[in-house]
Amino acid sequence: MDSRIGLKCYGIKKGKTGVGIALMEGRIFAVYTQNRIKAAPVLFNMKNLGRRVKGIIVNSGNANAFTGEEGLRNTRRMVEFMAEKLNCNLNEIAVASTGIIGRQLDIKEIEEIAEEVFENLGGDSRCIEAFAKAIMTTDRFPKIARREFDGIEILGIAKGAGMISPNMATMLAFIFTNADVESMEVIFRKAVDMSFNRLIVDGDTSTNDTIFMITSENVKAEGEKFRKELTSLMIELAEMIAEDGEGSTKVFRVYVSGAKSQRDAELIARAVARSNLVKTAIYGKDPNFGRIVCAIGYSGADVDENLTIKIKSRKGEVKIIDRGRVIEDSMEDGRDLMSEKFIEIHIQLEKGNGSFYIIGCDLTHDYVELNSRYTT
Amino acid sequence: MDSRIGLKCYGIKKGKTGVGIALMEGRIFAVYTQNRIKAAPVLFNMKNLGRRVKGIIVNSGNANAFTGEEGLRNTRRMVEFMAEKLNCNLNEIAVASTGIIGRQLDIKEIEEIAEEVFENLGGDSRCIEAFAKAIMTTDRFPKIARREFDGIEILGIAKGAGMISPNMATMLAFIFTNADVESMEVIFRKAVDMSFNRLIVDGDTSTNDTIFMITSENVKAEGEKFRKELTSLMIELAEMIAEDGEGSTKVFRVYVSGAKSQRDAELIARAVARSNLVKTAIYGKDPNFGRIVCAIGYSGADVDENLTIKIKSRKGEVKIIDRGRVIEDSMEDGRDLMSEKFIEIHIQLEKGNGSFYIIGCDLTHDYVELNSRYTT
Repeated sequence: MDSRIGLKCYGIKKGKTGVGIALMEGRIFAVYTQNRIKAAPVLFNMKNLGRRVKGIIVNSGNANAFTGEEGLRNTRRMVEFMAEKLNCNLNEIAVASTGIIGRQLDIKEIEEIAEEVFENLGGDSRCIEAFAKAIMTTDRFPKIARREFDGIEILGIAKGAGMISPNMATMLAFIFTNADVESMEVIFRKAVDMSFNRLIVDGDTSTNDTIFMITSENVKAEGEKFRKELTSLMIELAEMIAEDGEGSTKVFRVYVSGAKSQRDAELIARAVARSNLVKTAIYGKDPNFGRIVCAIGYSGADVDENLTIKIKSRKGEVKIIDRGRVIEDSMEDGRDLMSEKFIEIHIQLEKGNGSFYIIGCDLTHDYVELNSRYTT
Repeated sequence: MDSRIGLKCYGIKKGKTGVGIALMEGRIFAVYTQNRIKAAPVLFNMKNLGRRVKGIIVNSGNANAFTGEEGLRNTRRMVEFMAEKLNCNLNEIAVASTGIIGRQLDIKEIEEIAEEVFENLGGDSRCIEAFAKAIMTTDRFPKIARREFDGIEILGIAKGAGMISPNMATMLAFIFTNADVESMEVIFRKAVDMSFNRLIVDGDTSTNDTIFMITSENVKAEGEKFRKELTSLMIELAEMIAEDGEGSTKVFRVYVSGAKSQRDAELIARAVARSNLVKTAIYGKDPNFGRIVCAIGYSGADVDENLTIKIKSRKGEVKIIDRGRVIEDSMEDGRDLMSEKFIEIHIQLEKGNGSFYIIGCDLTHDYVELNSRYTT
C-alpha cells in the first residue's frame, strides 16, 4: 500500500507519552475543534499551516491545552524538530496533541522519542499500526480503516473517545490518499460532516479535536465516487470511536425522517443521542419509548405525538410506536433486538422531508467509574 | 398554619398509585413544561384552567403522557370528580400527573383512592406531609418548605427528580400563600426563573413538569419582600430536588460572573452543570479544571483563557485557576473541599458584567444503575 500513497510513518509510546510521525508530501485539508478554548497545536496550525505539507507530528499524553505562551513555544519546537529533519519550512508541518489539559509538555522527552521514531519510519502495515498505537491515550484498540478502488487508496487512522485522562474525549483523525479530485475541499468537509460531526459520545467537545487529510494527488478520481468512499471510511472510523467510547458497550445510530426540515431532524437526532436517560436505557437493553419521546419533545423541533419509532439490529426490526400508538406487545422483541452491539433507532415524523442521523454510544457503569476515579 | 392560608389537603398512596388533593380558594398561577409533547393534564390545564380555583388533584404512578384522546378523557374525569365534590366548575380545578409514560390511567383506582383522600382532608402538618408523600414516585423523601413573615405565609410542596419509572424526572411543585401583592404574575415567573428553571439534573425535560401557586390574597404584602421570600423557598425546594436527583450524592451550584452578557453567563453555567465529565468529576471529588475549562470553551459563549475558577464549600474556598494560570498546589485543598455535600464552582471571566447561576447534581454509579435496570 505504501508505494502508491508514498506514506512513511511510525510511532512509539513510552509510559504515557507517545509520539507518532507521518511523512507524506501533498496537499493538506484540515478541520479543527469548535471549542472556543483551543489547544496550542490547533492554534499553531490555524495560524501557520500552508496548503501543502511534508509531514505530521503528533504527541499523546499531554494535550498542550490551556498552556498559554509556553504551550505555543513547545508546539513550535515540535514543528521545528520536523522541519529540520525534513529540511522544509515550518508551514509544511502539521501538528496535533492529545492528553492531559493544563500542564506543559515535556518537550525534551518528546524530542527524544521523536528521534527514535524517525529511525524506524516505514510504509508497511506494521509501521501504520505503530503510528495508530502511539497516538492512543486510553483507547482500547488502534483505529485504522482502508479503501481501495480504481487505483485510488485511502488510509485512515484515528484515535478517539477512550477517556483522555483527565479531561475529555479528544478525537484525532489522519487520512492519507493519492486521489486527485475536483473540489476536494468541499468533498472533505462534506465527508467530515456526514461522519465525525455526527458522533456524540458524551456531548463534550475537546479543545484538541483535529482531522487532517493529505493527498498526493497522483491519481485522477471521480469526485462522487471518491466522496462516497471517503465518507464510508470516516463513518467506519467514527463508529470505531463510538465502540471505544468511555466504558461503552453498545453503538447506536438514531435516524430521523419526515421532520419539518433537516435542521429539525438534526435537533431531534442529537437530543435523543445525547439524552442520558436514552443512553442508560440502551445500556439496559430497554426499548424505552417514553424516554425517546420525551427527548423528541424537548429537542426544540416542531413535533407532535403522530410519530413512529422502530428499533433495528442485526436480529431484525420491531415497531414500538405506530403513529402515536404504543405497541405494548413489541417490548419483548425490542429487548431481544437490543441485546446486539449495534442498534438503530428509527424515528419517523409526518411533518415534512427533513432527515438526519447521529452515531452514539451507551452510558454505562464503566463510564462513571472511569470518569469519577481519575484524580488530577 | 392552616388557619391563615385556609389550605386543606391530604394524600394516599396504594402500591405505585398515589392521589393528592389540595383544597384552597384563590387565584392560581401556573408554569408548565417547555416540552413539545405535553401530558394530558398539562394540555387540559392550558386549555381550561381559569384565573381562580378551588382545588388541585394530583396522581402519581402514571404520567398520563403520550396517551392521546383517551388520556385527555381520563384527565377530564379526574377534574369532574373534584368539581362534583366541590360543586364548582371544571375550570376551577387544577390537575397534574407524574409517573410512567404511554399507558392509560386506571381512572377507577384513582377515583377510589381520591374518595378516601377526601374523607381525611385537613390543614395540619400531618396532612401536608401525606400530600407530599402521595405525589412522590421514587423520590427518597418528601419535599416541603415554609416561610413566614409580616403575617404572610408561604407553603411549598414539591416532588422531584427521583427516577420516575420508567421515564424521567418530572418536577411538580405546589405553592400556597395568603399574600396579596401587585404584579403577582411577574413575581411568580421571576421566582420560578431564579429557582426551578436553574435546576439541571440530567438535562432531560419532562412532559409533565408543572408549578402551581395559589394565593388567597388575604394579606397585603410588599412585592419585593415577597419576591425574595418566594424565590428563597423555591430555591430550597429546587435544591431538595437536586439532592434527591437520581442516584445523586452531591448538589452543586455553578456561578458565572464577568461574562460578556447574561446570556453568555447562562450558556457557560448550563454547559458546565450539564457536562457528564464535570458531573462525574464532582462525584469523584476531583477539582478537574480541565473539564470545566473545556465545557466553558464549547458553551457557545465568547470566552478566552483569561479566567479564574474557585471551588467553595462549607469548609472554605480555593482558587484552582487564576487568570488562566493553573494553580497546581491547590488541587489537594480542592479535593478536600469537594468531600462536602454542597459545592460551589465559581467561574469569573473578564469580558463584561454578565452573571448567572445553575443548580446541578453529580452523575453517579447509582444514576446508571437506576436508569439502566428499569425495564418497561
